[in-house]
Amino acid sequence: MDRDLEQGRGRTGTVISAETASDIMQTAHLLADAARGETLRLFRSPELRPDNKAAQGFDPVTEADRASERAMRAILARRRPQDAILGEEYGATPGSSGLTWVLDPIDGTRAFMAGAPSWGVLIGVAGDSGPVYGIVDQPHLGERFEGGFGIARLTGREAQTPLACRTGVDLAQATLMTTYPEVGTADELAAFTRVARQVRLTRYGLDCYAYALLAAGHVDLVIEAGLQSYDVMAPIAVVQAAGGVVTDWKGGAAHGGGQIVAAASPALHAQALELLAGS
Amino acid sequence: MDRDLEQGRGRTGTVISAETASDIMQTAHLLADAARGETLRLFRSPELRPDNKAAQGFDPVTEADRASERAMRAILARRRPQDAILGEEYGATPGSSGLTWVLDPIDGTRAFMAGAPSWGVLIGVAGDSGPVYGIVDQPHLGERFEGGFGIARLTGREAQTPLACRTGVDLAQATLMTTYPEVGTADELAAFTRVARQVRLTRYGLDCYAYALLAAGHVDLVIEAGLQSYDVMAPIAVVQAAGGVVTDWKGGAAHGGGQIVAAASPALHAQALELLAGS
Repeated sequence: MDRDLEQGRGRTGTVISAETASDIMQTAHLLADAARGETLRLFRSPELRPDNKAAQGFDPVTEADRASERAMRAILARRRPQDAILGEEYGATPGSSGLTWVLDPIDGTRAFMAGAPSWGVLIGVAGDSGPVYGIVDQPHLGERFEGGFGIARLTGREAQTPLACRTGVDLAQATLMTTYPEVGTADELAAFTRVARQVRLTRYGLDCYAYALLAAGHVDLVIEAGLQSYDVMAPIAVVQAAGGVVTDWKGGAAHGGGQIVAAASPALHAQALELLAGS
Repeated sequence: MDRDLEQGRGRTGTVISAETASDIMQTAHLLADAARGETLRLFRSPELRPDNKAAQGFDPVTEADRASERAMRAILARRRPQDAILGEEYGATPGSSGLTWVLDPIDGTRAFMAGAPSWGVLIGVAGDSGPVYGIVDQPHLGERFEGGFGIARLTGREAQTPLACRTGVDLAQATLMTTYPEVGTADELAAFTRVARQVRLTRYGLDCYAYALLAAGHVDLVIEAGLQSYDVMAPIAVVQAAGGVVTDWKGGAAHGGGQIVAAASPALHAQALELLAGS
């Protein structure tokens, strides 16, 4: 239990009692357990048949996405009916507590479809001004990354380990991740490329797992564009709890989505912002 | 035991007795077990310090790569001294049996460095005209993909499942994988892009794990360029055993490396070859 929590105050200013924090964490783990069951039932199954939600192009959603969100919503309806919900598949449900559960039942549906273990279940809890707690869960690997209320830890199949971003890595030695090589618009790609040219290694295709690797100290920068709130709320909580810095490309709050830069240290974050701005 | 093996003949024409085949398989699993130990010891460890093998750019090698290959070579020296070895880190060792063990102790060292679980240990056994048996092992996931001598199977943490490429997927519905978005030269990228434009989904960054996903029926095409023999020997054995087709971009033998196209079905393979050729 950290000092902020003992004072009844999350890092974003929302007043949350220790009892509420404990209930949120227990509930979040129940959600993650339920989502594991629903997603693993269809992961790599021949029964998986993606539908296309996009009018143009391909934006897949599967029964696994929907079943995973439904299972999480059923638990929230029972345990936390006073909280609001924002979920990728079933939208917004109002609440009265000032807290919102921000759910992406499968972040990385394309990876899920392809059998690749970089997708994840994202469970964020937001207060007035951003996330107070989050889980990034990778069911196939059995890895749960968790941050907030003074906790920053990875629970794996065999052990629990603390999460901590690594420090002391220069930009020239850094590893950068993003999901799509095209990043976003042409301007966004140009900005991303200014950073990519300065780092040692750029890797693609890891979806939310890139933020988990940043929080675990294996990666130094994650830069993406075109994200939604439910894509980033939980990852921001986990990365911040591990000592990292997450903002939009101008240095403002990132939890609304859009352009995101997550950095292992304030120094790397400042360098990335400068390059993204074009200087 | 399949019919070819009962006749003492691997699919590439090399004469191999059932007893030898059995010894090769047992030995290969011992190699994979040893490599798991050596690689997992350093995966995600702060002690991992990559060296750069390239005169220009960044071609990382780590102590995990070297220790993994040394452990495998020690087993071969004891159990199969008559066979030749070609390994990424320690080069060629001659033999007298007509069989060569083709080893990549960590395929995807960049992914390994970044903590991403797409790297693998590649163990191929080649006869006169290509691979007769191969293992693609992913130690962190605990997944071993194996093909040859009538076997095509995935041994996971909890179960063994047969490997079989999926059939009946049209090019327009196909999932394509490659490791690097730049693919190779500008011409190679242009050829790749002709295929990528026709498929439903293209994913990046999976190294040898892409071939494993193809053999397991989750992905339809893997197209890469600039590969080495040790990058492809084991994946070819696994994909072929699962019913897939692997050649170079002109339809010739692929086990020497270079430009590789691996397809889940002969129909997709033919379509990919045509697009790669520019028609």
